[in-house]
Amino acid sequence: MKVANQHYRTIWLNEDGQSVDIIDQRWLPHEFRIVTLKTVADVATAIRDMWVRGAPLIGVTAAYGIAIAMVSDPGDENLEKTWNELNETRPTAINLRWALNEMKTFLAPLSPDRRADAAYRRAAEIAEEDIELNRRIGQNGLEIIRKIAAGKEPGEPVNILTHCNAGWLATVDYGTATAPIYLATEEGIPVHVYVDETRPRNQGAQLTAWEMVGHGVPHTLIVDNAGGHMMQHGKIDMVIVGTDRTTSQGDVCNKIGTYLKALAAKDNNVPFYVALPSPTIDWTVSDGVVEIPIEERDEDEVSFIQGKAGDGSVSRLRISPEGTPASNPAFDVTPARLITGLITERGVAPASGEGLRALFPERAH
Amino acid sequence: MKVANQHYRTIWLNEDGQSVDIIDQRWLPHEFRIVTLKTVADVATAIRDMWVRGAPLIGVTAAYGIAIAMVSDPGDENLEKTWNELNETRPTAINLRWALNEMKTFLAPLSPDRRADAAYRRAAEIAEEDIELNRRIGQNGLEIIRKIAAGKEPGEPVNILTHCNAGWLATVDYGTATAPIYLATEEGIPVHVYVDETRPRNQGAQLTAWEMVGHGVPHTLIVDNAGGHMMQHGKIDMVIVGTDRTTSQGDVCNKIGTYLKALAAKDNNVPFYVALPSPTIDWTVSDGVVEIPIEERDEDEVSFIQGKAGDGSVSRLRISPEGTPASNPAFDVTPARLITGLITERGVAPASGEGLRALFPERAH
Repeated sequence: MKVANQHYRTIWLNEDGQSVDIIDQRWLPHEFRIVTLKTVADVATAIRDMWVRGAPLIGVTAAYGIAIAMVSDPGDENLEKTWNELNETRPTAINLRWALNEMKTFLAPLSPDRRADAAYRRAAEIAEEDIELNRRIGQNGLEIIRKIAAGKEPGEPVNILTHCNAGWLATVDYGTATAPIYLATEEGIPVHVYVDETRPRNQGAQLTAWEMVGHGVPHTLIVDNAGGHMMQHGKIDMVIVGTDRTTSQGDVCNKIGTYLKALAAKDNNVPFYVALPSPTIDWTVSDGVVEIPIEERDEDEVSFIQGKAGDGSVSRLRISPEGTPASNPAFDVTPARLITGLITERGVAPASGEGLRALFPERAH
Repeated sequence: MKVANQHYRTIWLNEDGQSVDIIDQRWLPHEFRIVTLKTVADVATAIRDMWVRGAPLIGVTAAYGIAIAMVSDPGDENLEKTWNELNETRPTAINLRWALNEMKTFLAPLSPDRRADAAYRRAAEIAEEDIELNRRIGQNGLEIIRKIAAGKEPGEPVNILTHCNAGWLATVDYGTATAPIYLATEEGIPVHVYVDETRPRNQGAQLTAWEMVGHGVPHTLIVDNAGGHMMQHGKIDMVIVGTDRTTSQGDVCNKIGTYLKALAAKDNNVPFYVALPSPTIDWTVSDGVVEIPIEERDEDEVSFIQGKAGDGSVSRLRISPEGTPASNPAFDVTPARLITGLITERGVAPASGEGLRALFPERAH
C-alpha cells in the first residue's frame, strides 16, 4: 500500500537476484528504514527479533531464507539445517512452519544444482499467493462493510475496531484484517478505524496507525482498555482482527487482548470478524485454549517502551519500578463461540468445524 | 503504608497548621517527591492535574482546600466560590462533590470567625474516617481471601488481579482494593498480586506496583491485554478493583478497561469484587452506562508516555505517528450483573439495588 504516495510491499527481491529487502518495522512509525537480508542468519534475526512480523510476512521471509541458503549450499543437510534454524525463530506462527514445509517439500525432490533458482521462484510465488489471498479476503470482507454502510445515513462512516497489526505490514501487501478496509476506501465507502494501541509492543499505535496515515484512512488511536466502553456506547459497528493460528474448530489465537475485545463485542452485539488466509488454519489443533502453547516473551517488553524523544531520536524508557517483575504472554485464544465469522479467501465461514469444513471440503476427512 | 520501611500517608497537615503536604504522584515510581499546597489554586491544580488522584484522596484534598480558603477569607461568598472552583476540577469523582458538600454544610451555619478552625478539624476527621472505612473494607475483603486461601495447598499464594490504583496512594492510607491485600499479608496469608499496568496513565505500573515494592507484597506486572488469558488458564483466583462512582443499582464506574476484566472474570468463573467506601455510592444514579458522563481526557495521554531514561531522568516519548488523532475516555461502567460482590465498610453486598439497600437501609426510601 502507499507510504507518502509511493507504493510499497513489505519484502522484495533485490536486483542481485539473491538478497531481499525488508522494511525494518522496529523503527516505525518514527523512522522508515529499509534493510537488506543477505544470509540465513540475517533472516533468522529479522524474524526472531521482529524486524518483520505478522504470520504471512514471517512465512514469506522464511521462504526467502531457504532460498538464500540454497545459493551457498543447496545440499540436503543444509536444507534440513536451515529449516530447523528458521523454524525455531518464533514458536506460535503457523505460517512459518507452513512456508518452511512448502519450500522443503518443493525442493527436496530436485537435484541440488537446480534448487537455488527453484527456491527463489517458489518464494516469489508464495509472496504473490499471499497478495492474492489478501485481495480475496478483502473482497469478502468488503461485502460485510457494504451491508453495514447501506444501513447508515449517507456519508456516515462505518466504524471498525482493529487490534494489533493485521495490516499490509504483517503481510506482503493489503493485509488481512485491513484488506476489506483498504478496498472499502478505494470504493469510496466512508470508513473510520479505531486502532487499539496493542500493548506491550504497540503494533497498533506504531504500525496500523502508521499504515492509516500513509494510505489516508480516517482513524483514531485508543488504548486497549477503551474498546469495551466504545462498544457500550454504539461507537463500533464491527471488529476485524487477524490471527496467527486458527484451529479446525474455529478458535483463534491472536495478539494478547483479542479475547477481551471479543467478549465485549459479544456483550454488546457488535459483529466480531477474524480475517485469515487459509494457511493460518492449523487443522491438527481443535481446542485452542487447551492445545496452543502461548509464547512468553521477554519481560522488558512490558517494563520498557520505545518512542520518539523531543529531539527526534528514537529511545527507550522504563515505565515500571525497578524490583517489579513482569509476565508477558504474547497471544491469547478467542473461543469460536465469540466469533461472528471467519473471513477467508474463499468466503466468510461461521467459526466452527462445520463452517470451516464447508469452505475447505478437501480438509473434511 | 510503608515506603522504604517508613510509614507514610498520602496527605498530612503541616506544623504551620495551614498548608498540607502531599506525595506528588506524577513522578512515581521513579521519584518520590513531597509537595506543599498553600493556596486553593495549589489544591485545584493538584486535583486537576492529578498530583493526587483516587476518589477518596481527591475528597480529602478538596476538604483541605476549603479549609485553606477559610484562613484568608471565611465569608459566605468565598466558601461558595471555593466550592465551585474545586468542584470543576474533575467531573466524574463523586467523592469530590461529597467532601465539598460535607464541608459546606458543616461550615455554613457557623459564624465566619469560627470557620477556619472548624474546617481544619472537619478535614482531619474526613481523613481519619477514610482510613477507618478502608480498614473495615480491608477486614471484610480479608474474609474472602481467607476462604480462597483455605482451599489451597499450604504456602500456595492467592492470586489477585487488580486494575489501576485503588491502593493507599488513592486514599489517605490502606487503599480500598488493596486494603484486603495489605491485611492478608499482615496476617501471613500468602498473596500474589497481578498488577494491570492500566493505560493510558499507567497507574498500575507506576503506583500499584510501587506500593507493592514498598510494602513488600509479591506481585507481577502485566499489560491490560493479558488478564483474560491469565483467567483462561486458572492463574487468577479473584479480581479486586476500586471504583470512582457506584450507582444505586450496583453498576460501577471505574478506570477505563475495568469492564473488560469483569467480562473475562464472568466468562471464566473468577470472582470479581469491587471495594468501595460508601461515599462512593451515588444514590441518585441508577443505570451507570446510560447516566454517568465519562470524562474525555487529553489525547496526549495516549500519544505520549512518561518514564525513566537511561540517565535516570524522567522524560516523555511520543509513541504514535504524528497525524494520528487519539480518543481518551478515562472511565468505563461495569454493569452490576458482572460483579460478584461490593466490598463496603459494612460488609460485602451483592451488586444490586436490593443488596446495597440491605447494607444501607437508611437509603432505602
